Amino acid sequence: MTTGYALLTPGGTLQPWTFGLRATRPDDVRVRITHCGVCHSDLHAIEAADGLPLVPGHEFTGEVAEIGSAVTEFAVGDRVAVGNIVDSCGVCPACLDEEETYCLEFPTLTYGGVDRHDGTPRHGAYARETVVRDRFVYHLPEELDPAGAAPLMCAGVTMWQPLRRLGVGAGTRVGVAGLGGLGHLAVKFARALGASVTVFTTSRSRREQALALGAEAVVLSTDPDQMARHAYAFDVIVDTVPGEHDLTPYLLTLDFDGTLCVLGIPPRHQVDAMALLRGRRRVTASGSSGVRDAREMLAFAAEHGITADVEVLPAPRVREALDRLARGDVRGRLVLDLTVTDEAPIVAG
Amino acid sequence: MTTGYALLTPGGTLQPWTFGLRATRPDDVRVRITHCGVCHSDLHAIEAADGLPLVPGHEFTGEVAEIGSAVTEFAVGDRVAVGNIVDSCGVCPACLDEEETYCLEFPTLTYGGVDRHDGTPRHGAYARETVVRDRFVYHLPEELDPAGAAPLMCAGVTMWQPLRRLGVGAGTRVGVAGLGGLGHLAVKFARALGASVTVFTTSRSRREQALALGAEAVVLSTDPDQMARHAYAFDVIVDTVPGEHDLTPYLLTLDFDGTLCVLGIPPRHQVDAMALLRGRRRVTASGSSGVRDAREMLAFAAEHGITADVEVLPAPRVREALDRLARGDVRGRLVLDLTVTDEAPIVAG
Repeated sequence: MTTGYALLTPGGTLQPWTFGLRATRPDDVRVRITHCGVCHSDLHAIEAADGLPLVPGHEFTGEVAEIGSAVTEFAVGDRVAVGNIVDSCGVCPACLDEEETYCLEFPTLTYGGVDRHDGTPRHGAYARETVVRDRFVYHLPEELDPAGAAPLMCAGVTMWQPLRRLGVGAGTRVGVAGLGGLGHLAVKFARALGASVTVFTTSRSRREQALALGAEAVVLSTDPDQMARHAYAFDVIVDTVPGEHDLTPYLLTLDFDGTLCVLGIPPRHQVDAMALLRGRRRVTASGSSGVRDAREMLAFAAEHGITADVEVLPAPRVREALDRLARGDVRGRLVLDLTVTDEAPIVAG
Repeated sequence: MTTGYALLTPGGTLQPWTFGLRATRPDDVRVRITHCGVCHSDLHAIEAADGLPLVPGHEFTGEVAEIGSAVTEFAVGDRVAVGNIVDSCGVCPACLDEEETYCLEFPTLTYGGVDRHDGTPRHGAYARETVVRDRFVYHLPEELDPAGAAPLMCAGVTMWQPLRRLGVGAGTRVGVAGLGGLGHLAVKFARALGASVTVFTTSRSRREQALALGAEAVVLSTDPDQMARHAYAFDVIVDTVPGEHDLTPYLLTLDFDGTLCVLGIPPRHQVDAMALLRGRRRVTASGSSGVRDAREMLAFAAEHGITADVEVLPAPRVREALDRLARGDVRGRLVLDLTVTDEAPIVAG
């Protein structure tokens, strides 16, 4: 049994809740969670309210509490990190390439589905403990603070993957649209990769934050004159603006053969055909790919001392955290401290 | 003075017309046109009816009739070919890169604008003669038939450019959507580059034509089962289907990191965000880039004996040619034979 925060009825709010964990299998690691990032997809899952009770949380850090009999890579007490995938078929081409996001049988997600072996519901990391297949548990480098590292496991790898894939390195001119949980990590990773970074924002108040993160310039994306002055200025733009929005202003700031990587997932992107044609520009999308990306990202973050800028709230304030995320009242990422829990949770019946 | 076919009044049809050519400047080549391809953009120009009188035609072959005093690369009687650009600023970064399509001052097009030096209207190659700056005249390789080579200068280079840019070569799995003027040349070029080619078509009647062109397989794009069997099957797809259409079925047949190159230019492309995300796919567009691409394309075409499949009509049947193109009654490309002209053209007054 463990304790967490669950949506128990549609339209409700998260409640303290006690629930069972599966018995640790030979290749399982039981993790005592210390920190979990609060991600937009948690809000979406709560709104959708499928498969209740729902315990959100899929970017977290903690310590190994127990290992299965076949686990060799971890010992009790190790500092670890886990992201949004906790199992996969392991034998398809994508899994063999360590790109488990694309597992042909679909990966088992940290929450919002069922265990692929025994069919028990998966519960996420807004909780005191969870059980994860060892392959999807990562050693947390000693250089990284566990609160700041938790958001690396979703937001971090989601940004790392496209920056690497698109060849961002020394001299690359990178634009970052939006400066939330994803965007601020994009600035940090791109700078550490050697790129020059310009931040597009709709909010003048983000200017100082962007410069402090290492951006060389800040462009107010609502100002057509400022945008026009940056025509053909970038090799890569990562667009972290959520929801459907006009991609054209960003496309026009790409140089020839430049790529716009859109992180948001509205049903459709509307792409101006002439803006694409005039610069032979490209539009792509990206998410995390799997354990290889996560491992590389953690090693790079450790080498360059990169963690998310976080505000840590004790777990009992989870509802406040979600409300603030919903209204955009966040700098960097909100992280729950799961070592603090409520006194009298509802016991699963 | 020369003779051609012009739209004289909006909503009218092309009429035989006699008009003046500018005096040959030192860097000019006067070309006696023998063949001109009939392109969809000619239809669009006639429909738009801007800047009348309008003489269409921008992919043509012929012989040098006169050279300017500073022209060294051509002699009277040389076989030559010309595309849709006849001049540019010559000094901007794009022009210095021989990518004059992207000239910062905008290139002078073969028709539909004015000469950048003296402001006289440009008339196209549905005519007996035209005058072009020497830099934009190409030697027609002796291996190439002038009728079949004319469409290479627009349709050909428009396909060549993306195939090269996207790295199509030995072993590349290429899909070609549509088998018209652009599509049939895409099959020929991709095959000659060493790629395996599959044709997507909406018409069962195109099957034999596709196989004869060298395609290894033909997929009926209106059959969801056939499309589903080709999921993740291609590295590059060139989509020559005109007008706005759903890109999703093609996107889903791209493998990871594959690229869909859309040749049509509707105002907007609608791109399914999940189809893009699930395979880290890319969408791009393409046209010809300029002199360097055209020169490379002609050399490659000569080496591999590639010309367009054409049906040659005597120039006085130009209205019939346009009508047939408008209703899709064409295999390959229609080409006008400009050595045959009408007896009694209207004289420009």
